[in-house]
Amino acid sequence: MAPQYAPSLRSRLAPLLLFVQIGFIFIYAFYIEIESHVKEDGITFSNFYAEFQDVNVMVILGFGFLCTFLVRYGFSGLGFNLLVAVMATQWAIILNGIESWYYRGMIRINLRSLVVAEMCSASALISIGAVLGKTSPVHLVLIALLEVSGFVLNEWLLQTMLKVQPLKSIMLLHIFGAFFGLTLTWILYRKGSEQQFEKEKFDRKTGLFSMLGTMFLWMFWPSFNSVLVDNHTPGRKLGAVFSTYLALAVSAVTAAAVSVLCSPKGKLNPIHMQSSILAGGVAVGVSMSVVHQPWEAMAIGFTAALVSTIGLRYLKIHMLLAFKCHDTCAVLSTHGLAGLLGWLAHLLLQIKGCDDHTTAIRFAVFHICTLFITISLSLSMGIITGLLLKWNFWRPPQDKKCFDDQAFWEFPQLAVRK
Amino acid sequence: MAPQYAPSLRSRLAPLLLFVQIGFIFIYAFYIEIESHVKEDGITFSNFYAEFQDVNVMVILGFGFLCTFLVRYGFSGLGFNLLVAVMATQWAIILNGIESWYYRGMIRINLRSLVVAEMCSASALISIGAVLGKTSPVHLVLIALLEVSGFVLNEWLLQTMLKVQPLKSIMLLHIFGAFFGLTLTWILYRKGSEQQFEKEKFDRKTGLFSMLGTMFLWMFWPSFNSVLVDNHTPGRKLGAVFSTYLALAVSAVTAAAVSVLCSPKGKLNPIHMQSSILAGGVAVGVSMSVVHQPWEAMAIGFTAALVSTIGLRYLKIHMLLAFKCHDTCAVLSTHGLAGLLGWLAHLLLQIKGCDDHTTAIRFAVFHICTLFITISLSLSMGIITGLLLKWNFWRPPQDKKCFDDQAFWEFPQLAVRK
Amino acid sequence: MAPQYAPSLRSRLAPLLLFVQIGFIFIYAFYIEIESHVKEDGITFSNFYAEFQDVNVMVILGFGFLCTFLVRYGFSGLGFNLLVAVMATQWAIILNGIESWYYRGMIRINLRSLVVAEMCSASALISIGAVLGKTSPVHLVLIALLEVSGFVLNEWLLQTMLKVQPLKSIMLLHIFGAFFGLTLTWILYRKGSEQQFEKEKFDRKTGLFSMLGTMFLWMFWPSFNSVLVDNHTPGRKLGAVFSTYLALAVSAVTAAAVSVLCSPKGKLNPIHMQSSILAGGVAVGVSMSVVHQPWEAMAIGFTAALVSTIGLRYLKIHMLLAFKCHDTCAVLSTHGLAGLLGWLAHLLLQIKGCDDHTTAIRFAVFHICTLFITISLSLSMGIITGLLLKWNFWRPPQDKKCFDDQAFWEFPQLAVRK
Repeated sequence: MAPQYAPSLRSRLAPLLLFVQIGFIFIYAFYIEIESHVKEDGITFSNFYAEFQDVNVMVILGFGFLCTFLVRYGFSGLGFNLLVAVMATQWAIILNGIESWYYRGMIRINLRSLVVAEMCSASALISIGAVLGKTSPVHLVLIALLEVSGFVLNEWLLQTMLKVQPLKSIMLLHIFGAFFGLTLTWILYRKGSEQQFEKEKFDRKTGLFSMLGTMFLWMFWPSFNSVLVDNHTPGRKLGAVFSTYLALAVSAVTAAAVSVLCSPKGKLNPIHMQSSILAGGVAVGVSMSVVHQPWEAMAIGFTAALVSTIGLRYLKIHMLLAFKCHDTCAVLSTHGLAGLLGWLAHLLLQIKGCDDHTTAIRFAVFHICTLFITISLSLSMGIITGLLLKWNFWRPPQDKKCFDDQAFWEFPQLAVRK
Repeated sequence: MAPQYAPSLRSRLAPLLLFVQIGFIFIYAFYIEIESHVKEDGITFSNFYAEFQDVNVMVILGFGFLCTFLVRYGFSGLGFNLLVAVMATQWAIILNGIESWYYRGMIRINLRSLVVAEMCSASALISIGAVLGKTSPVHLVLIALLEVSGFVLNEWLLQTMLKVQPLKSIMLLHIFGAFFGLTLTWILYRKGSEQQFEKEKFDRKTGLFSMLGTMFLWMFWPSFNSVLVDNHTPGRKLGAVFSTYLALAVSAVTAAAVSVLCSPKGKLNPIHMQSSILAGGVAVGVSMSVVHQPWEAMAIGFTAALVSTIGLRYLKIHMLLAFKCHDTCAVLSTHGLAGLLGWLAHLLLQIKGCDDHTTAIRFAVFHICTLFITISLSLSMGIITGLLLKWNFWRPPQDKKCFDDQAFWEFPQLAVRK
Repeated sequence: MAPQYAPSLRSRLAPLLLFVQIGFIFIYAFYIEIESHVKEDGITFSNFYAEFQDVNVMVILGFGFLCTFLVRYGFSGLGFNLLVAVMATQWAIILNGIESWYYRGMIRINLRSLVVAEMCSASALISIGAVLGKTSPVHLVLIALLEVSGFVLNEWLLQTMLKVQPLKSIMLLHIFGAFFGLTLTWILYRKGSEQQFEKEKFDRKTGLFSMLGTMFLWMFWPSFNSVLVDNHTPGRKLGAVFSTYLALAVSAVTAAAVSVLCSPKGKLNPIHMQSSILAGGVAVGVSMSVVHQPWEAMAIGFTAALVSTIGLRYLKIHMLLAFKCHDTCAVLSTHGLAGLLGWLAHLLLQIKGCDDHTTAIRFAVFHICTLFITISLSLSMGIITGLLLKWNFWRPPQDKKCFDDQAFWEFPQLAVRK
């Protein structure tokens, strides 16, 4: 009964991986060098390294284990997440350095480049959350490469056209990733998804693994939001850490309360707890440059968890039935809505802080343009990627093999058990 | 058969959480500000941040996964731990700042305040270990808020009345938490606990999750004990790290040996290994300011593991049968006895180091007073909290719903499986 | 059916542990002191501490959870790993300090000593991977003590006879550990191992735990390779981090591709993914002092993953059938082959960088001597240890009790379930 042979992996995945990887090695050989000069901006290597590792843990372990909630898809969730993360990171290092390559012929990388690349790769991992289980790893690698290209293009557009600060444009990763993923899953819609897939179930045992992933994301989110904040102005980094911590704390409490209130049985929902407790971190990350008081972060965290939990309860099924948009990891609620809320909070706080009317309007227009460009680019790249993936050449998995590790993994000693 | 509706959550937990959380946001809005000035005491923000994250991992992930050893209580152990930890931390930040609010009208917080608050919250998590599984999350939140209040009051009393150093009074958290929890569980005793609850079982599969929690606690305990040690005197922090590491190493070996020797079957006991390997960290933490030689830490670790393992084997069941005190996570052996041992080691080492008789006696009296105040306050607060929780208004779970996730969690796609 | 009594633990393990541990406490009491003087070499305590914790997580949690892939051996894998790691670390601190004891009468330890000791203990944990499941914990403790002695002797020989740099000689831990373990498992060969042991099976549920161990090793390997690199030359530490990160990234992609290509079913193999994605870190670690360009690290990572995956697929079973060498965790492919490849890469890169012929030949001879000494010592120590362990006094577990937690662990509440 279980699928016995996985032709798509041998004829598609292995050549694709080897081709791209060897290509990367050549590009790195000719164009990339390590910047040995240590910058004198108050952040020494060692200090930065600990924060890099926190982000690394989030990207590899946090996102990876978050995807293990599906009952029979743990190895795929973890393993494909790792594959996608390392491909996307290597690719993002190259893309982010194109400008410096254009002027100097070489791309100089340092630890900061690696952190930025991991954040681009986090954006790809968010997109992948929407299509997880319904795609083959070949798809996932292609999605990651295209998503990262789109995201870096978006960053470049925002920074050259609108002079958006780098940190702000990177933090739009949640919005970009979520809408890219949603477009993809809408294009790749499979008939019959309204009834749940046979194996698309939450499992209590593997559920603890996905709680582990959530916990790591939750704990290290302050590092994620603060790692790129510069240390020149004393206290800014501390402010970012505190804002994120408090927003996450309030999110956890609010998500629990709202989950109970929304539930027909009056109980806590583990899926809500896993996703919505992170909403505060997303929203505060997007609006961070204007959040100065602890209570602002807490209020944002409160609203984000509220919106995200309600989204999970009512919107997820609605998206599926009304828009034929099947969102496996509910990235719309966790990253999309929370990101939009953070964007809105940014707008409101900035306007509140403006002295006169004209500045406020100018800022609002500028801020709306930023969002408009991000969402347009994210939707168009999503459509392009989706159409490319529709091509049967990539061999999509059959419906009955969806959400099943056995389609891709060989469990070696299982045969002996009989 | 499984409980279908959880009225206590919707009518009690959700309003309580929302009420307290919104209250916190208002308090933070009016009285709390972030201290942007970076202190010039040799610890920069970034250095301190890595140690804060270690403590954060211990409180959120370590204590959380430690509670997953019960076969059907993993989600509750993890989820309620998170809820309680974030409520207690927010509350402790407020309480610890009351004095500064009294003098200046505002509470200034920095990363150190957050670390101290997480330690207060660790104290609440220890108490909760004693009543885990027999209480609803409403109880747990109330316990956490009251326990933290008691603990901060105790700190304040010791610091103002006896001029105990802040670090020393914080490290009494193990003793305070353990005795508070024991009093609680004694008051909340349920008839029939002598026979094990139906679902109070250790499970081999989830047992590995609780090993994960233990490992995180074990690994990061040196950070827990050293994070608040100041860096002025070079080597003091290194001394704290080394003492804790060696005490934990010796604890692990001793716990294994004693567990085998005590076992009727001559085997290792996973519960002993999980709890007793931490005893050295507890004991050395309490006595840290006087431990100067590695061997002293090792001897303390040895004795602590010995006492804790023997306590787990013989005392736990005795406490239940003789004193009607059902201690789910055996906090008496792990934190109570090891803490008292650390207190005793502190006394002996201090006396040994005294030059003359009078100083020794004066110190002993002072040290005994410290313990006496801590335990009295811990017992009285435990009794008050226990009596409050006896009130049926909070809707305690029925006996047959004890130790069961299904009473509080809705497992969404499980219904589809049929 | 399950083994009811474990005589070897009570009569052998407990006395051995207590005897050795108390001995250690005495040695520490008389000969070990903490070096309070902080070195002025640009690495402050706090910076170094975060990297120490990464290594600590790898040794305790990474190696520990890596061993949980066996279906019924999770607690033993984790628990014995912890026991062995702490015994080996304490012993390595003593051995590494013998020289300083010889000259000054005291051994001064600092955080660096602890990191070096944990690396020696990692070497012992690699050896243990080869015999895991077929030995009792008594064996494992003896193996660890003897392996660490051999490894420290090897380091001393290389440093005094050949003037090998300390960092280079420590990084040979992979080669030393792997060949020591292989010799051991060859001597301790049990008849009938060609047919798999009854319980030597990979399990999907506990498989996720071993993925967790792998992930931690994968994520923190850059810390492992860079922690001892000094910070004098700016950029060297950054170079080590980048090389390791890129080698690991390429390893992960290559291991996936090769695993698919080698598999008869054209699928990914979880065991391959778990072991071979680490091969790049091993190989780059051994050759690190001469890897200067990112692409060199990537090429080494590529080759290491290729060799390691092919080794896992074809060599492991061949070693068993042809050489009667049963290698539980496949340390030959992961650490042995990848280590040798790193050694070869070191040789080639160094020769490539040499100006004239004579220097190149002199270096090659020197480098081959280093390997020769390491492997000879590793094989001889392995033979000595193996012969000692053959002695029936240590009570080896029976064949049917191999790979079974129940032989050593008492699962307390399981009896109640009936």
